[in-house]
Amino acid sequence: MSNFVPTPTVPAPDIVRCAYMEIVVTDLARSRAFYVDLLGLHVTEEDETTIYLRSFEEFIHHNLVLRKGPIAAVAAFAYRVKSPAEVDAAEAYYKELGCRTERRKDGFTKGIGDSVRVEDPLGFPYEFFYETEHVERLTQRYDLYSAGELVRLDHFNQVTPDVPRGRKYLEDLGFRVSEDIKDSDGVTYAAWMHRKQTVHDTALTGGNGPRMHHVAFATHEKHNIIQICDKMGALRISDRIERGPGRHGVSNAFYLYILDPDNHRIEIYTQDYYTGDPDNPTVTWDVHDNQRRDWWGNAVVPSWYTEASLVLDLDGNPQPVIERTDASEMAVTVGADGFSYTRKDDGDGSGAVEGFKLGAQL
Amino acid sequence: MSNFVPTPTVPAPDIVRCAYMEIVVTDLARSRAFYVDLLGLHVTEEDETTIYLRSFEEFIHHNLVLRKGPIAAVAAFAYRVKSPAEVDAAEAYYKELGCRTERRKDGFTKGIGDSVRVEDPLGFPYEFFYETEHVERLTQRYDLYSAGELVRLDHFNQVTPDVPRGRKYLEDLGFRVSEDIKDSDGVTYAAWMHRKQTVHDTALTGGNGPRMHHVAFATHEKHNIIQICDKMGALRISDRIERGPGRHGVSNAFYLYILDPDNHRIEIYTQDYYTGDPDNPTVTWDVHDNQRRDWWGNAVVPSWYTEASLVLDLDGNPQPVIERTDASEMAVTVGADGFSYTRKDDGDGSGAVEGFKLGAQL
Amino acid sequence: MSNFVPTPTVPAPDIVRCAYMEIVVTDLARSRAFYVDLLGLHVTEEDETTIYLRSFEEFIHHNLVLRKGPIAAVAAFAYRVKSPAEVDAAEAYYKELGCRTERRKDGFTKGIGDSVRVEDPLGFPYEFFYETEHVERLTQRYDLYSAGELVRLDHFNQVTPDVPRGRKYLEDLGFRVSEDIKDSDGVTYAAWMHRKQTVHDTALTGGNGPRMHHVAFATHEKHNIIQICDKMGALRISDRIERGPGRHGVSNAFYLYILDPDNHRIEIYTQDYYTGDPDNPTVTWDVHDNQRRDWWGNAVVPSWYTEASLVLDLDGNPQPVIERTDASEMAVTVGADGFSYTRKDDGDGSGAVEGFKLGAQL
Amino acid sequence: MSNFVPTPTVPAPDIVRCAYMEIVVTDLARSRAFYVDLLGLHVTEEDETTIYLRSFEEFIHHNLVLRKGPIAAVAAFAYRVKSPAEVDAAEAYYKELGCRTERRKDGFTKGIGDSVRVEDPLGFPYEFFYETEHVERLTQRYDLYSAGELVRLDHFNQVTPDVPRGRKYLEDLGFRVSEDIKDSDGVTYAAWMHRKQTVHDTALTGGNGPRMHHVAFATHEKHNIIQICDKMGALRISDRIERGPGRHGVSNAFYLYILDPDNHRIEIYTQDYYTGDPDNPTVTWDVHDNQRRDWWGNAVVPSWYTEASLVLDLDGNPQPVIERTDASEMAVTVGADGFSYTRKDDGDGSGAVEGFKLGAQL
Repeated sequence: MSNFVPTPTVPAPDIVRCAYMEIVVTDLARSRAFYVDLLGLHVTEEDETTIYLRSFEEFIHHNLVLRKGPIAAVAAFAYRVKSPAEVDAAEAYYKELGCRTERRKDGFTKGIGDSVRVEDPLGFPYEFFYETEHVERLTQRYDLYSAGELVRLDHFNQVTPDVPRGRKYLEDLGFRVSEDIKDSDGVTYAAWMHRKQTVHDTALTGGNGPRMHHVAFATHEKHNIIQICDKMGALRISDRIERGPGRHGVSNAFYLYILDPDNHRIEIYTQDYYTGDPDNPTVTWDVHDNQRRDWWGNAVVPSWYTEASLVLDLDGNPQPVIERTDASEMAVTVGADGFSYTRKDDGDGSGAVEGFKLGAQL
Repeated sequence: MSNFVPTPTVPAPDIVRCAYMEIVVTDLARSRAFYVDLLGLHVTEEDETTIYLRSFEEFIHHNLVLRKGPIAAVAAFAYRVKSPAEVDAAEAYYKELGCRTERRKDGFTKGIGDSVRVEDPLGFPYEFFYETEHVERLTQRYDLYSAGELVRLDHFNQVTPDVPRGRKYLEDLGFRVSEDIKDSDGVTYAAWMHRKQTVHDTALTGGNGPRMHHVAFATHEKHNIIQICDKMGALRISDRIERGPGRHGVSNAFYLYILDPDNHRIEIYTQDYYTGDPDNPTVTWDVHDNQRRDWWGNAVVPSWYTEASLVLDLDGNPQPVIERTDASEMAVTVGADGFSYTRKDDGDGSGAVEGFKLGAQL
Repeated sequence: MSNFVPTPTVPAPDIVRCAYMEIVVTDLARSRAFYVDLLGLHVTEEDETTIYLRSFEEFIHHNLVLRKGPIAAVAAFAYRVKSPAEVDAAEAYYKELGCRTERRKDGFTKGIGDSVRVEDPLGFPYEFFYETEHVERLTQRYDLYSAGELVRLDHFNQVTPDVPRGRKYLEDLGFRVSEDIKDSDGVTYAAWMHRKQTVHDTALTGGNGPRMHHVAFATHEKHNIIQICDKMGALRISDRIERGPGRHGVSNAFYLYILDPDNHRIEIYTQDYYTGDPDNPTVTWDVHDNQRRDWWGNAVVPSWYTEASLVLDLDGNPQPVIERTDASEMAVTVGADGFSYTRKDDGDGSGAVEGFKLGAQL
Repeated sequence: MSNFVPTPTVPAPDIVRCAYMEIVVTDLARSRAFYVDLLGLHVTEEDETTIYLRSFEEFIHHNLVLRKGPIAAVAAFAYRVKSPAEVDAAEAYYKELGCRTERRKDGFTKGIGDSVRVEDPLGFPYEFFYETEHVERLTQRYDLYSAGELVRLDHFNQVTPDVPRGRKYLEDLGFRVSEDIKDSDGVTYAAWMHRKQTVHDTALTGGNGPRMHHVAFATHEKHNIIQICDKMGALRISDRIERGPGRHGVSNAFYLYILDPDNHRIEIYTQDYYTGDPDNPTVTWDVHDNQRRDWWGNAVVPSWYTEASLVLDLDGNPQPVIERTDASEMAVTVGADGFSYTRKDDGDGSGAVEGFKLGAQL
């Protein structure tokens, strides 16, 4: 099968966590207004072409790099590994996979040292690094704490046509699955995968890809997320709130999706759960369960399923987007072809589903 | 003009606040599960046909009466007046208005004394009382405080075809308008009116009426409302969440609308603002402003505009519902005939509106 | 009896609410840093000698005036009345009381029109006004909303030697008592009195007076108050946190007391309860109940009982401070001479009190 | 040096996290009222002598075992290891350390399989296990979610006379130090040590030991902790609130300390930070920094320093308590012999400390 990803014979690099994303934006000033003025991310460094941003409790140089460029896209999903030697391990691992790799001893971005970037088997630009400049961790700088403060980078989310293939690849790379969405025919629609002890460092969303679905930052409490909505209302950009706020079924986190000026999707996220035990139970959701993506049954807007950001190859060119051929989650749950239920079987023995929500069907 | 409401020559009764609603439910046990087990309202008294409920910080006998009956409907919108003499004033006032009235020295419900009920000029069953049994105010009974605790009755909301007519009637009755929704043609779609020092004791929503749109209870904080959603998800009744949670434009309150087993609509509401000054500024919203009903621009579901509860006359029969002939807020804002904007004029001199939200147009 | 306050024969002015306080500060820049940079109050206007501040949801010109002067003190406790005519009523009322009054058609401060200031029978400088400039109400300006945002002026608190005398004077003036603290010998230690529908517009604390105990601003939620503490920690001025945060027994509000650069005491306060019904139950606390001032039994620091701000007469000179001769709340509850209990009678029939808290006794 | 702990030549067991504590209580019914009725921990199983409790998001059998016994004490600090083989590793490790060990293939408590208990070099009863019965994780059972819900076991805290010795022992065991408290003479007063990616799984507090200082449970948000205080006030057991709520300097968590009926100390804790990176910066606090234990400078009550629970040897007898000979944190910071500062050097060149808080000195 052409899309089989072999498991390398060399050990996978020991990944600590998702660490930063580098995104290309077309108007740096507008993006700065979004990420700094609206969202309050903290500028570690900036120049005419690039802004390095970090969250409140971060001590590495950055969690997000905004780089000015002609086409909005994602240049890197960067993971921190456990030691300098693990960068070698990553390079060897992807070489054995037959992937294109590029090693830079001085890093691809400021504040990061020896790194390797790869075009991974799914077409994503992954980076692995250990060395980084430590900067002031702002944890107790409450004089800088805004009402909607983003305190940690939480996770990435990637769109890929073949979720089981991607899942196997990431499991080989050492990720563990915390939750997934399937149907009774065995189709997998999405999977959540972690290295650190949260629900995910990255997730795979089934769709046309490779594309970046979103990058997520955590807040301390739910009211911080509500404030971000309120502020977007005050700035009269509520049309940039795409979905939420709501409570996820998957992950149990309280969430919000907003769109940056280039339509890169940002999630604001809080209060998922500890997954650090080796036998952490995997939760599988039925794709027809209307509470899987929103515990309150609020409808997922179609754009959330269809729109995503291009990703770049190591030359900086957009990767071609391959169509998903498996069933689409949107098609099987929304509109004429799909259905969702709130209660699977109301106990009358018929096995009938019940609880269609007003508005859940367009 | 036939629907003119004359101002009586006798003084209007001095109303303190909205105090309780009496609703007819068709299955008392199911309604008890909703109001007591789910929402945590406190039972003051109950028997086979009736349950008297109050919120956490209430000291009068009840804020909500559930009475078993054949047709789901509202039997009374009850206001507390400032003294026993004001019940006489209310009776005289409505008699002069030519309305049917009924006076009961022992009250219409347990725990309430001398009261008058009227069929008001808009067709609603209004009650006025002063005497009430004081019960334990649970304010510091934190041993009884649930995660989604309802602490006060906040307001009523009534559907009526002719909002300006209703507004004049309520202003004569001593209510003051805090906010309203209009269009540039002078059509009024809704008005919020208060006696106590909050945004409203009741509101008028334009539509086919007389019907009861909702009754609202307040929580202390926003997370209490989120918990109610989370609990409805856990109980697999998320399809009974009709709209929200969200931030209102009008009133600025954080809100949620849910449906009881008879489709009576309940709002959970928190953090509007002080309106007690005589010159409290009235806020007028443009009906096309997409943030007027939800500050985050999230769509109002059609059912919220179209569905409401019947109200009863003093014989207990449903009042006939009269159609609104003015423009409908749903029609002018949702779907093929309507539009909404997020930014009224983006400054290009064209006066063009901008900022349609994905999903705001069905 | 010399300290009897007669009830005037003319009607008391119809007071709406506490509206602003004018305080004299010795270093305007330091006070600005405290009220604007730390607490986030909004500057309506300012010049070299005076700063006019308002809270987030205020629409009148100011809630706090900082005026530079040689001696830290309070120049006015200003109340808004219901109409321009009520300023006349106030002047007549205090004239009949034999108090010194001063009327200024253009107001004593910017943004306020026709006002009367009086030296009241307790020695406090009270002001009454109706006319005020309306300014932008920032209620939905969430782009300006800080993590510890102060949204309303809530109340004043005054130290006076003879609480029953002060209470009678304020009741005659139209205030109603919501709560008080007494002992079994009939000594009154404090009383909370309101015009608007909250627990108080002002309170009387027994002690050497006339002095200003504190002025209180409200936040929306409890986490906003915690943020103020956290920010004071970050600024290394935690020694200016005098007491709290905690939950009051009296009023049930969540509270914090902090000290400005001149030792004027500011309370941050949230979530007391509705008191607008004419028969709102008065709550009386036993002075020995260890939960009366802090529901969690945390000790009141001695400075909170002993320290307060001077108040000025109409010439701008400090009023002499008269000693309280009744029992002192601190003396009867703290230290060698006092006691407090958590449980009044543990049911063993002895009537013994129980539940001394570690640290409640110095 | 007699109190040197040698590093074994065999590998330390791979510890995942603190998992449960077994405590001996003298009155099972009173303890049940405290842990179940007040705190809302969930009963997995119970019989006449033992109650097995877990927090809301736990999936292993229990986080706390209450066992009825004659003397209040702690029977085990239990850690989960990464695999069954790591229990062997733990046994070998402690055998080489010369510690008494006891292996039970069926576990020491219900719901736990193959385990080893040891009397560790510091005198504490440590347990290591992997096998456990999975139980329902209640994460989304919001129908069971109380206003003060405890969602995770967070950490242990142990009192030991020689903190550097204990620290070395725990570092050898694989723990990493996140924060500590020292003075300029090199005395270490406390250290926080973690395996999972939070600030600690256990901490060492300098004092007479071995004793158990506290066991801590996490809530989602700060208001959940405030509710626990409010509920203890309502139940008139506020004298069982020992310290807090407050914001820790160390760990940055929002905290509360309460006492169970046997004076076992429980901490409620929320919102520390991620520590999973290999080079997570260690934070060292000066013992004289008045914000180290409470960021708001609120005084630590003496009992918090002096009181703690006995721990048992493997025969169930209390371990003898050895006095600390190093300087005591209480002595150097509180009262006649100690001092604390809020600002270390106010910039006048004198190096003088400033900012004594009222009440920080008894």
